[in-house]
Amino acid sequence: MPADFRIADDKRLERQLDFLVEIDKIKNILRKSQLFDGSRFENDAEHSWTISLMAILLREYADFEVNMEKVLVMLLIHDIVEIDAGDTFLYVEARESAHLEEEKAAQRIFGMLDADQRDHFIGIWHEFEARQTNEARFAAVFDRLEPLLQNFINKGYTWKQNGITYAMVFEKNRQIAEGSPRIWDFVQKLLKIAVQRAYLPE
Amino acid sequence: MPADFRIADDKRLERQLDFLVEIDKIKNILRKSQLFDGSRFENDAEHSWTISLMAILLREYADFEVNMEKVLVMLLIHDIVEIDAGDTFLYVEARESAHLEEEKAAQRIFGMLDADQRDHFIGIWHEFEARQTNEARFAAVFDRLEPLLQNFINKGYTWKQNGITYAMVFEKNRQIAEGSPRIWDFVQKLLKIAVQRAYLPE
Repeated sequence: MPADFRIADDKRLERQLDFLVEIDKIKNILRKSQLFDGSRFENDAEHSWTISLMAILLREYADFEVNMEKVLVMLLIHDIVEIDAGDTFLYVEARESAHLEEEKAAQRIFGMLDADQRDHFIGIWHEFEARQTNEARFAAVFDRLEPLLQNFINKGYTWKQNGITYAMVFEKNRQIAEGSPRIWDFVQKLLKIAVQRAYLPE
Repeated sequence: MPADFRIADDKRLERQLDFLVEIDKIKNILRKSQLFDGSRFENDAEHSWTISLMAILLREYADFEVNMEKVLVMLLIHDIVEIDAGDTFLYVEARESAHLEEEKAAQRIFGMLDADQRDHFIGIWHEFEARQTNEARFAAVFDRLEPLLQNFINKGYTWKQNGITYAMVFEKNRQIAEGSPRIWDFVQKLLKIAVQRAYLPE
């Protein structure tokens, strides 16, 4: 259903506003992890807000220079593709096919914008996904760190619900070291304690 | 209740993580406006995500240079004070006393961090509130624009619920012109049509 902003005699602005209405659907995409207070599942807009704030707050843990504006744009847009493709749990096998769906979603959703903005945002999203630049590596730290913290605080809720083990968490999150060795050191401590406390089976 | 991250032998990091858990409460602070799909009220984290994205998407409507990193930090943190002070509706008279409560809230919540980060974030929040810099004026545009768009799409829902008139909306939002004359032009068109369609009484 198109938005109703066709009032400005300005096609570019209309497209930008239609895009804003479209991406609001991200607020209905629920993740597998719960809020820190354990009251409910988090949605993708909330997740994106938290990890953006984390990047700002924990910037000092990067071992290299980052363009923080680009990191924030990456984190704010990275889950828009899930409007079409849905949230894919980190530990499932189907991440390859999910990636194809996400690519299609990026073309459709960012394709609502004029070509310059479409290409700009798809480019930043691809950069984030490829994890080959400092900004992408640093941004990815927080996409991984938030659910680890949430699961620790919530006594392993999502891990237990989904039969996740220490080895699986270690393997899927070790890439944190590429963006912040110091945060990866912290996460390794956190996971050891999670095992000791039986939040996470060994 | 303190978070349970006292595992790192690193007081600074512990404080940063405690702060992250504390500010997660923003996800339970509901605003007066509804999501674009009209399904429910928006919370402060979702609002902060949307207006950050708006600033990125609509950057071209600023008539001056802005440091986008600073704009984004402002928008991402600006409502954290509402965890203690609550959401204050734009059109109520009590905004003066709300401001005192928000100041106290800023001291308490950002005060969970080490002094350097506390002072940094309170400084940015004060800059946003004072609207004397280009970044603050541009950031403020989106804090105002989002509920205008939401109310337009939702046929004046919040305006009708609260007896808000065209003159009140015009008066409280005209500051948009300081951040973006072109967006203020658009808003004036939008408000005229809102009156024509009886979303907003004259």
